[in-house]
Amino acid sequence: MRPSGRDKDALRVVSIETDVNKHAEGSCLIRMGDTHVLCTASVEERVPPFLRNSGQGWVTAEYGMLPRATTTRGRREAKDKQTGRTQEIQRLIGRSLRAGIDRHALGERQITVDCDVIQADGGTRCASITGGWVALRLAVNRLMKAKLITTDPLSAPVTAVSCGLYAGQAVLDLDYAEDSEAGVDGNFVLTGDKLIEIQMSAEGATFSHAEMDQLLGLAEGGCAQLAEMQKAASA
Amino acid sequence: MRPSGRDKDALRVVSIETDVNKHAEGSCLIRMGDTHVLCTASVEERVPPFLRNSGQGWVTAEYGMLPRATTTRGRREAKDKQTGRTQEIQRLIGRSLRAGIDRHALGERQITVDCDVIQADGGTRCASITGGWVALRLAVNRLMKAKLITTDPLSAPVTAVSCGLYAGQAVLDLDYAEDSEAGVDGNFVLTGDKLIEIQMSAEGATFSHAEMDQLLGLAEGGCAQLAEMQKAASA
Amino acid sequence: MRPSGRDKDALRVVSIETDVNKHAEGSCLIRMGDTHVLCTASVEERVPPFLRNSGQGWVTAEYGMLPRATTTRGRREAKDKQTGRTQEIQRLIGRSLRAGIDRHALGERQITVDCDVIQADGGTRCASITGGWVALRLAVNRLMKAKLITTDPLSAPVTAVSCGLYAGQAVLDLDYAEDSEAGVDGNFVLTGDKLIEIQMSAEGATFSHAEMDQLLGLAEGGCAQLAEMQKAASA
Amino acid sequence: MRPSGRDKDALRVVSIETDVNKHAEGSCLIRMGDTHVLCTASVEERVPPFLRNSGQGWVTAEYGMLPRATTTRGRREAKDKQTGRTQEIQRLIGRSLRAGIDRHALGERQITVDCDVIQADGGTRCASITGGWVALRLAVNRLMKAKLITTDPLSAPVTAVSCGLYAGQAVLDLDYAEDSEAGVDGNFVLTGDKLIEIQMSAEGATFSHAEMDQLLGLAEGGCAQLAEMQKAASA
Amino acid sequence: MRPSGRDKDALRVVSIETDVNKHAEGSCLIRMGDTHVLCTASVEERVPPFLRNSGQGWVTAEYGMLPRATTTRGRREAKDKQTGRTQEIQRLIGRSLRAGIDRHALGERQITVDCDVIQADGGTRCASITGGWVALRLAVNRLMKAKLITTDPLSAPVTAVSCGLYAGQAVLDLDYAEDSEAGVDGNFVLTGDKLIEIQMSAEGATFSHAEMDQLLGLAEGGCAQLAEMQKAASA
Amino acid sequence: MRPSGRDKDALRVVSIETDVNKHAEGSCLIRMGDTHVLCTASVEERVPPFLRNSGQGWVTAEYGMLPRATTTRGRREAKDKQTGRTQEIQRLIGRSLRAGIDRHALGERQITVDCDVIQADGGTRCASITGGWVALRLAVNRLMKAKLITTDPLSAPVTAVSCGLYAGQAVLDLDYAEDSEAGVDGNFVLTGDKLIEIQMSAEGATFSHAEMDQLLGLAEGGCAQLAEMQKAASA
Repeated sequence: MRPSGRDKDALRVVSIETDVNKHAEGSCLIRMGDTHVLCTASVEERVPPFLRNSGQGWVTAEYGMLPRATTTRGRREAKDKQTGRTQEIQRLIGRSLRAGIDRHALGERQITVDCDVIQADGGTRCASITGGWVALRLAVNRLMKAKLITTDPLSAPVTAVSCGLYAGQAVLDLDYAEDSEAGVDGNFVLTGDKLIEIQMSAEGATFSHAEMDQLLGLAEGGCAQLAEMQKAASA
Repeated sequence: MRPSGRDKDALRVVSIETDVNKHAEGSCLIRMGDTHVLCTASVEERVPPFLRNSGQGWVTAEYGMLPRATTTRGRREAKDKQTGRTQEIQRLIGRSLRAGIDRHALGERQITVDCDVIQADGGTRCASITGGWVALRLAVNRLMKAKLITTDPLSAPVTAVSCGLYAGQAVLDLDYAEDSEAGVDGNFVLTGDKLIEIQMSAEGATFSHAEMDQLLGLAEGGCAQLAEMQKAASA
Repeated sequence: MRPSGRDKDALRVVSIETDVNKHAEGSCLIRMGDTHVLCTASVEERVPPFLRNSGQGWVTAEYGMLPRATTTRGRREAKDKQTGRTQEIQRLIGRSLRAGIDRHALGERQITVDCDVIQADGGTRCASITGGWVALRLAVNRLMKAKLITTDPLSAPVTAVSCGLYAGQAVLDLDYAEDSEAGVDGNFVLTGDKLIEIQMSAEGATFSHAEMDQLLGLAEGGCAQLAEMQKAASA
Repeated sequence: MRPSGRDKDALRVVSIETDVNKHAEGSCLIRMGDTHVLCTASVEERVPPFLRNSGQGWVTAEYGMLPRATTTRGRREAKDKQTGRTQEIQRLIGRSLRAGIDRHALGERQITVDCDVIQADGGTRCASITGGWVALRLAVNRLMKAKLITTDPLSAPVTAVSCGLYAGQAVLDLDYAEDSEAGVDGNFVLTGDKLIEIQMSAEGATFSHAEMDQLLGLAEGGCAQLAEMQKAASA
Repeated sequence: MRPSGRDKDALRVVSIETDVNKHAEGSCLIRMGDTHVLCTASVEERVPPFLRNSGQGWVTAEYGMLPRATTTRGRREAKDKQTGRTQEIQRLIGRSLRAGIDRHALGERQITVDCDVIQADGGTRCASITGGWVALRLAVNRLMKAKLITTDPLSAPVTAVSCGLYAGQAVLDLDYAEDSEAGVDGNFVLTGDKLIEIQMSAEGATFSHAEMDQLLGLAEGGCAQLAEMQKAASA
Repeated sequence: MRPSGRDKDALRVVSIETDVNKHAEGSCLIRMGDTHVLCTASVEERVPPFLRNSGQGWVTAEYGMLPRATTTRGRREAKDKQTGRTQEIQRLIGRSLRAGIDRHALGERQITVDCDVIQADGGTRCASITGGWVALRLAVNRLMKAKLITTDPLSAPVTAVSCGLYAGQAVLDLDYAEDSEAGVDGNFVLTGDKLIEIQMSAEGATFSHAEMDQLLGLAEGGCAQLAEMQKAASA
């Protein structure tokens, strides 16, 4: 029995509220249960040095947590002095979002997706990817409406969900209560029915080839549902 | 005529939504027009080294701005590497909130008030002080309800508002459109009808003793209104 | 009765010794009682990026304290890692000096005013502004003598003085003994009889509108005397 | 056809030379083809603060690359200012080695495994884990010989290998020539026939559930061979 | 012929003004020609961790240069972020002063000697050592007068001077004009007629064993004169 | 009697193994007894800003120590945050190697010599200079073979050795056991029979003019032997 009473293949209640920031080109507030992440997409008409005059654009991400997003207050972090954990997360978000975009169609501009965790209850990096894609989608819509882009650079949505072994059983979308107990858990990023990233990690435990198969199956089911919500939110 | 059409002594529309964070001991989202600041008060049962075994508590503040709170995206900052502007602001917030608390009655514990600007349109430091006091009030209420504090350490509310010379006229509560044009502007922090802080600054202009009097009068009126809203919100 | 025996509207003994550095374009050693600040003005034929090709110049300031300027030895600071206090002070000095200069008449060059406190006894930021203006005046004189500038970019002197409530009474130009006891004190920067900056701050106290009037009156008197000394020193 | 001519399931030539450092409690130089990593294990009779008086020990890892380990010279890194990539790698090494140790049996001491890449040709993090385990094994042997530990805290060896899709085909143990071309690749860490970590990542490509199965199969085969070599080296 | 017209074995005009800082336990302003260094000695009743409960004291030094001490304005430095040159200099000053003190007789306290260059014209590190010793001497005198120390921990003065090959000839006490031309120069630190430190360095040149002998002879003569001045100043 | 049983003028066993890195333009592993330093020379077709369009090249050095090169594990250092000791050493290595090269003949390119201490037993900076010159020699040979350089920019080898007073006697090439006991020791850098650098330092001791002569004599003998080995290794 999961602490929340959910079935092993059940997502938490998910909502995606869009256009929550009057300055950003695209924005949303994604809630996966008590995990709330504010995602903004900022368009800049410049690219990193290695892409100048390449005709290609860039998508990057930054991730942050407000000091009291967690049960006990944490320390503020900054761009040049982040913990290893924060860097791992934002590198993952950036790679995942780039995997779903045609950088030639985007043209020589950069979109920065900021994912700021307002309240945390497990699964913040997955919520950031799923919500970040919606902010990115809305920013691209605006560029297309303004005819700055003619071919849509985004194809299938990019979605992410965590899975893990909780009390010996494979479960979908762990909340903090489960996450802190699970000896094995990981994050799966998909676009359509294809995989982009897998990060599985065991702590004080191990997992078998067969269990890996089960977890992957759960992730495929969860991501399909999230992709539907992304489409509804950014339609 | 002010860009917003407001009278010279009119505040923007203000709202204070409380208990917006499930982890924090006190929290609110204050909106002064399009300036939105999330304030959380975190209680810790420890004090800075210089207060150990003194029987006194401490109140401190941190201020941050989400990267896309502003019209163009800004850079993330961290606790140990903040710009001078950020440090000035959070030192001001901390001093202001401490001015309104009896640190002996608080007892040997620390309350950290985090003010994170979700969206900025001028006057973020004043909104942070006014909203920060509400978060502090709610956290203290919780400590009193739990009988950890017996004498209320908070007396009159601490409120803050900006005033300035816009198009040659003294006006209350400048928004960004006014702030960026005003040659003279400043921040006033009051508790009850007494002053705690004044920070007046001219850029490419000067002001007279008489104009200073007018600005101070406007601030007194604005702060009286804000104190009523604080009381309503934290009742 | 003030610890120094001064009247409430009396400045400390002030002296301004000029040309104390053989390398700097302008320099002075200002002494306000036991507060001694070495001020140098350095001219560079370049401006910050945001002013390139604007035809305008820039004045900036840096403030430092030698480790043993104070009663107990302090820690050295550096340009990129200054305390919030140091940053606040040098931002104030820079804004104040810029308020008194016509940046078009200065032409596209930068003058950096370094204010290094050799010995501290209260009021170092005000001494830095008053002395810094003299160093700036001397550097501009040299540029005019060399015909690099044709119109004098400096008009009325910029002067600064502190005032506060000591033992319940408004007093002028606080020394360290008063400053460490005063619950309310602040700094006033004037040019001619007009105000540029006010920074009033209360700690464990408050002040009224009427007291603010008194403090402002004292500051106006003190600054008028300082302006006379600046003129004499830089004639 | 692979650039090296190897079969798709063939490791590079592997050698593990032990006791290469006269100061370290355990050490080896592991060579996987042209990737050479110097691994040392340092025993300290202290633990991180969170483990004091817990009766448990700790294993941690640091990873570094000499500036000219790569084809073009790189920048030196330091403990507190590492790139995100370096931090990800050393966190992975540390978690992997901890997964194979009984921290109660180790007792309250810390072993730091330093993995310094002398020459790089792909797969440095996997070589670091495989070689790091040998250094750890040797250091533990010394502690047991000295009777400081009575129960062996290490069970099955921890081994790691990379796999990826090169030219559309799943291959084992990518060298740099393959790694820089592969759109999909990842690292697998095993202990015995069980999994500890999987890090799969696609760049400009995706992968299917079936391909994931193949890659995992290759990794299982490669790790079994590496475990034999570890045993031979540390016997 | 030297630029200054001095004989090859002639020091510049040297003066040592003592008690120039009202807070420091010992202080002097040393002038060697146009090189002016403010030296303060600060006594603290604590020692670095490695000396606690050892019965021994410590002497350390910090060196700084005011931004406009040099012909063109330099950048401020801080304690934790100094250039290599600054660190080398202050390590040299500290070692030199420690060489002349009996740390048991000093007792478990630390004296920090701050050497701040007000104006530079070559030879600042040597002036800092010679002046720093005077500040140290005065601080020790005060400790002895207060009966905190009973045995004088200082024996012969520590003095330093630079020598170099200028225009092919060995000369004493180089000023900036000579220093910037000399291919070979160095610093010699003596106590009495014995050597403590030699730092010789050639740039675009070399020197012979015989030339080294000559330079050493000049240094011995110069230091003997400086020791007389130190005694006179601190008598 | 020396701990190692060596005569007072005897070097440790020295070996220089070349071409130990497949990426570097020049490389060697120098062993002076148990001190082992890996030296690589990296050629880059660019120079520091101050040499652009000067027709001259540059040689610079970086020095590092693997964490467990020493008896107890040390902390990793990075390029921008090195200890004063590390900076002193790499500045010395760079100056020494530059003293032996004709920078016009080198042409507008930079060679960075990295000296990484794999295992330390005293004298690491001297081994770095001697080995670094061999790596530099090999890199220059490659540039000449490729006809990128036509005139050999290197003349006599640059060699370095330490000497000191151990148990009252002048000895050559101190190992760690001697170095940690010696009150006086230093480093001598020569090219041919001429001196480039001397760094003598006493700690808790002093030395006389006559002892300095003896130490210099020992250094001359040791460097002559090292120069022969350099020639043999890089022939």
